[in-house]
Amino acid sequence: MIPTITAFESSPDRGRGLARDMRVRWALEEVGQPYDVRLLSFAAMKEPAHLALHPFGQIPTWEEGELVLFESGGIILHIAEQHAGLLPDDANARARAITWMFAALNTVEPPIVDRSMATILERDKSWYAERLPMLDKQVRARLDQLSARLGDGEWLDGAFSAADLMMVTVLRRLNGSGLLEDYPNLCAYIARGEARPAYQRAFADKLAVFAASASG
Amino acid sequence: MIPTITAFESSPDRGRGLARDMRVRWALEEVGQPYDVRLLSFAAMKEPAHLALHPFGQIPTWEEGELVLFESGGIILHIAEQHAGLLPDDANARARAITWMFAALNTVEPPIVDRSMATILERDKSWYAERLPMLDKQVRARLDQLSARLGDGEWLDGAFSAADLMMVTVLRRLNGSGLLEDYPNLCAYIARGEARPAYQRAFADKLAVFAASASG
Repeated sequence: MIPTITAFESSPDRGRGLARDMRVRWALEEVGQPYDVRLLSFAAMKEPAHLALHPFGQIPTWEEGELVLFESGGIILHIAEQHAGLLPDDANARARAITWMFAALNTVEPPIVDRSMATILERDKSWYAERLPMLDKQVRARLDQLSARLGDGEWLDGAFSAADLMMVTVLRRLNGSGLLEDYPNLCAYIARGEARPAYQRAFADKLAVFAASASG
Repeated sequence: MIPTITAFESSPDRGRGLARDMRVRWALEEVGQPYDVRLLSFAAMKEPAHLALHPFGQIPTWEEGELVLFESGGIILHIAEQHAGLLPDDANARARAITWMFAALNTVEPPIVDRSMATILERDKSWYAERLPMLDKQVRARLDQLSARLGDGEWLDGAFSAADLMMVTVLRRLNGSGLLEDYPNLCAYIARGEARPAYQRAFADKLAVFAASASG
């Protein structure tokens, strides 16, 4: 059965692959699972038909027969449990990889999203110049800790796993912020993720959507 | 083997049970797994010994023989996989429950944490009065959607699961904000969670730590 995911019809990041469907595309490419994509306008994401799939009106969603899922973490863990290649076989290593998936989403991503949202929603506010350094500091605190833990390791905990897929896509949201450049080991870690053939295939598919929408 | 978790030595919420170890205590009580608790000062949480367990210097952690975990989502999913009672047996229902765990942590909790952090860190800033309504609006957007999905259901998706445990503990962080009161079905949902005997036992244990530290 071919699953269907949803993605933005018009990429708000101009083709940089920062939306959360990129994570799911990459995971599906890693395990060799074909999939269909249904593109949604921002208006369609708030319609009852989509809210029935995703209570919070976002992308991506996952439809596979009667199963509907709606959060990138939940979707990727589901893919990882159905297919080999995204989680270690050893039970303890598997539990650690899942913990890192949660860490990427619940500890590292929130200050990164806060910062990027402020650069959009608060850029014209009187307090922006004073508040941005506070946001930068919160992001740097997490990057300091992550960089210290990664050290000169290739991946977060042994072999590449869904934890790295999640963390690399979270860190990529800082592209253009100027914050990553102080962490050479994190930059190299992101580059290792982006160099994987599965990432490259997912990114090419994503870029094709952007190119089609930009020329349409 | 009795696992050991970590928790705050001095509860910053004055015994209200809002710290993330409460989730893990509740999960362990639901499945009847005894556990030990090691209490940590804020200074100890930033020491190398704790950073070796938790790269981001937070609580809770999980130590079980050679296995170390460090994120409440990862710990609770680990408990749910080891014991019956926190995830449905049906494979699709199980995947949906896990998706709701991620939704609680990655979609509902971040705006709630943002708001509560601003009430602490930005209360004295010139922009606080203008920015707080923006933060409230972001929280309300999530509560509107969650309330609409829950409707008059007892739990998020069929029987009580780790998803409800996570969502209830996330929503409890809004206690005292005045925002929950507009959502009677969410208030009743939280009350159902708090009424569970396992929650009551976990909360009593948590309160005993607070009472001991307050009298010490």
